Amino acid sequence: MSDDPKAQIDKVRAWWDTQIIDIEPGKIGVRGYPIEELIGRVSFPDMIWLMTRGDLPSRAHSKLLEAALVASVDHGPHAPSIAIARMAITCGIDLNNAMASGVNVLGDIHGGPGQQCMELYQEIHAAGGDDLPATTDRVLERFVAANGKIIPGFGHRFHPVDPRVVPLLSLVEDAARDGAVSGSYARIGREVEAALRRRTGKAIPMNIDGVIAVIFCELGFPPPMGRGLFILSRSVGILAHAWEQSQRQERIKGPMPKEIPYTYSGPKRRTLDPDR
Amino acid sequence: MSDDPKAQIDKVRAWWDTQIIDIEPGKIGVRGYPIEELIGRVSFPDMIWLMTRGDLPSRAHSKLLEAALVASVDHGPHAPSIAIARMAITCGIDLNNAMASGVNVLGDIHGGPGQQCMELYQEIHAAGGDDLPATTDRVLERFVAANGKIIPGFGHRFHPVDPRVVPLLSLVEDAARDGAVSGSYARIGREVEAALRRRTGKAIPMNIDGVIAVIFCELGFPPPMGRGLFILSRSVGILAHAWEQSQRQERIKGPMPKEIPYTYSGPKRRTLDPDR
Amino acid sequence: MSDDPKAQIDKVRAWWDTQIIDIEPGKIGVRGYPIEELIGRVSFPDMIWLMTRGDLPSRAHSKLLEAALVASVDHGPHAPSIAIARMAITCGIDLNNAMASGVNVLGDIHGGPGQQCMELYQEIHAAGGDDLPATTDRVLERFVAANGKIIPGFGHRFHPVDPRVVPLLSLVEDAARDGAVSGSYARIGREVEAALRRRTGKAIPMNIDGVIAVIFCELGFPPPMGRGLFILSRSVGILAHAWEQSQRQERIKGPMPKEIPYTYSGPKRRTLDPDR
Amino acid sequence: MSDDPKAQIDKVRAWWDTQIIDIEPGKIGVRGYPIEELIGRVSFPDMIWLMTRGDLPSRAHSKLLEAALVASVDHGPHAPSIAIARMAITCGIDLNNAMASGVNVLGDIHGGPGQQCMELYQEIHAAGGDDLPATTDRVLERFVAANGKIIPGFGHRFHPVDPRVVPLLSLVEDAARDGAVSGSYARIGREVEAALRRRTGKAIPMNIDGVIAVIFCELGFPPPMGRGLFILSRSVGILAHAWEQSQRQERIKGPMPKEIPYTYSGPKRRTLDPDR
Repeated sequence: MSDDPKAQIDKVRAWWDTQIIDIEPGKIGVRGYPIEELIGRVSFPDMIWLMTRGDLPSRAHSKLLEAALVASVDHGPHAPSIAIARMAITCGIDLNNAMASGVNVLGDIHGGPGQQCMELYQEIHAAGGDDLPATTDRVLERFVAANGKIIPGFGHRFHPVDPRVVPLLSLVEDAARDGAVSGSYARIGREVEAALRRRTGKAIPMNIDGVIAVIFCELGFPPPMGRGLFILSRSVGILAHAWEQSQRQERIKGPMPKEIPYTYSGPKRRTLDPDR
Repeated sequence: MSDDPKAQIDKVRAWWDTQIIDIEPGKIGVRGYPIEELIGRVSFPDMIWLMTRGDLPSRAHSKLLEAALVASVDHGPHAPSIAIARMAITCGIDLNNAMASGVNVLGDIHGGPGQQCMELYQEIHAAGGDDLPATTDRVLERFVAANGKIIPGFGHRFHPVDPRVVPLLSLVEDAARDGAVSGSYARIGREVEAALRRRTGKAIPMNIDGVIAVIFCELGFPPPMGRGLFILSRSVGILAHAWEQSQRQERIKGPMPKEIPYTYSGPKRRTLDPDR
Repeated sequence: MSDDPKAQIDKVRAWWDTQIIDIEPGKIGVRGYPIEELIGRVSFPDMIWLMTRGDLPSRAHSKLLEAALVASVDHGPHAPSIAIARMAITCGIDLNNAMASGVNVLGDIHGGPGQQCMELYQEIHAAGGDDLPATTDRVLERFVAANGKIIPGFGHRFHPVDPRVVPLLSLVEDAARDGAVSGSYARIGREVEAALRRRTGKAIPMNIDGVIAVIFCELGFPPPMGRGLFILSRSVGILAHAWEQSQRQERIKGPMPKEIPYTYSGPKRRTLDPDR
Repeated sequence: MSDDPKAQIDKVRAWWDTQIIDIEPGKIGVRGYPIEELIGRVSFPDMIWLMTRGDLPSRAHSKLLEAALVASVDHGPHAPSIAIARMAITCGIDLNNAMASGVNVLGDIHGGPGQQCMELYQEIHAAGGDDLPATTDRVLERFVAANGKIIPGFGHRFHPVDPRVVPLLSLVEDAARDGAVSGSYARIGREVEAALRRRTGKAIPMNIDGVIAVIFCELGFPPPMGRGLFILSRSVGILAHAWEQSQRQERIKGPMPKEIPYTYSGPKRRTLDPDR
């Protein structure tokens, strides 16, 4: 790099370049919009869209995004992200820290199925062709060969039928009927469900991840943002549980009451070599 | 604890008791409401309120909460929470991890002023009396003696006037006129501003934290939730910046270009004692 | 700030000033020592001391630090820091992320007692006087009035006698006999134990935090570093448990088997107001 | 699962089974050894080995591990893990939180090259054959085809020759001469360096990750533990920098002085559609 201080300082400034927010003393522009025009006039989902996409959504798009955000806030204390936040808050750390420890675990397995399901839908969409069932069978064949039998977005280890799927899918299909979205991904999602029944002879119904993936694909989000938006939603549950726990006066809460001893399956008691 | 297995298993179950969410196969109840009734009918801010407060808000309350959430999403890459998320995503970790590293730093100084300002307002409110200016002067006197001259929620190291304050305060005052909120905390906030001018002879205007604290106090949130709700809002900015950065192909991004060497002010080069 | 680019670039460089490490192409100096002289010649505890204190320790000091680091690595899966790391690794995140979620919860309650005990010892030490028992009684009186009856470093919710205390305290007392440390804090620690028996009529023996606090005070570390060093030690246990868990093929491990339902104590099922 | 409470409680206990640590009131066994026998008699690297491997190392193995841990503690404030911890501590969070935000970013790119290099060495080792140069060329060919031209463990964006490599490699070769390790991985590492020169015509010397990978392979650690052990080492630097920063009274430290404005490359100021 040049040793010229002016060139250096320009490089430092450009190091932190962004297209999201412009701040000068007394002025804040979000994607070009003065913040004071947005406050009170756009919804929180609108703002999430503006920040991540660069423009404001139509009302219909915003409502679909909102429904997805509402649906995913919580899955109770059996979910590691929730249990971790509850345990964390009893250790003498603040809400931001407890939330961070919880959000952090929304990884490929706990927070990633929506993203992976979006990739699957997009692969089917890109494969195109007139015969959606045949295309879907072929893509699933390839997917199972590469990744094994768990199909992200389908089946549930707990709910036989996920009560969130029908109302969310109805909202998408209503929006498709109104021309607000194409409906292609709703069709793909339903076809994956049908193809899984063809493959396995069993009902492996779409779950919350599968229907959220339909919505985010219809709205044009890239797959990694499927995880990102899920995190915004689940952060609400993480906060609510951390806060509830903080009102209960427990200290250093472990995963079970300390009176229930865990089992130990390691080596028997032994003695250190005296020559060591 | 009893050695009775039934008593033990009951204790394990109660260990994870919650009043937030009830899940059975095929059923999800959030604060008692079936999730399928909420989807498409309540807004995301409604859901945040329901999860953290236990009941649904009035429309007017929900709109005030929404405005506060919209206003606080981002403060640009100079904010450590944002810069950290941007650097993090270049290190080969996922969005959930980058967001966690960012959310984690919203501590007492970076994420706490709203909460601290709520405590100050509540102290003034609780002190009561007919003479708000005198009460405010007295509480500020005590506050400064205990905590020093920085008043959380007032003054800004960057903005002479924060453009978010006027529209947010107008929304509160409109809601007070309609009887949706009391307006007491808006009056207290304005009085603190006046009192600071009396104390210092200078304008130390209310900032975003100060006006958000007005809103959250009007809405009846406890102070720690001021931080919690701020985190939900700022998570949007953290996500947007992490995502933008992820599109830029930088690897192991440090705080400045590596060609700009940091200064070293430690001991001069020295040699290890050969007898060590 | 000056608009002069040279002054600006100097300010940027100084922004990241450090006294710890000096790096030039082909050269790395740690506190002034060339890294190549340190490798193979100093121990890992020596390096921890050099990095955090600025100079190398005597052999006796290093051995005491090492014993403290060895003693604190783990407290099993009932400890939230450990359980969190184990749950985290089953969520599809990497070792660094699982460790971060665990380390993060070593807060005031879970990771802070050593630090708090160091502060207590230092207060007794600073109070001075010839009559250590009287001084200790007086400081404890004040401490209990301010903080309640839990004395950090004394008593244990699990171990009647902590097996780590006797060997660690012996090492300190041996070092004091050799003149390597003063022994003042070992005396203070024992006196706190005696004072607690005088106060309560019961044995409330020194625990691991109390004896580690003796060591770190004898070695001249400031109290917050008591927490910092504990984190280095506990990170070993967090890593070992995360690694063991990663070998077990569990996915999204919650705090208890999902077949054991948690209790729900919130509102009964209810229906959303149809006018909403 | 059975509804029998006894079976349920046994399942809960086994849920948290471990082979690492056995705790009963008054007793702590680490991999079978009573903790009181370990304190003062094993080194901190011995304890790291015992916790992660299940047995104590020979003295020669422990010394090699120790050298690797000493060598990797820090790479200065240009490293995101270090800069993040420094920024974090100015936001009003504690050492454990600042360290967590830093450790969290030691991901595939920032903390993973050692692990990836171990995998490369092991692939060469497993390919076997009498002609190490030919095997190495062939494996590198495949590696570059699959992963691109960056070879983990070789080349450095900053140091032409990494000063840590020669002393570490000498320690391995000394240990091989004494029969403490096989020396196979040292040969493989040197051969990769030679093969890269053959491939590119340039010197792309082994860096710290490449030599640490030699050591960890010689010692029999699996590749993911390469990252895990690196984290233990780098945590020392993260702690030292967070602690140094905490002594400097900065508040909400961003990546550069706030007087240096970042550039904004997003849309120009625009006005919200009045009909929205």
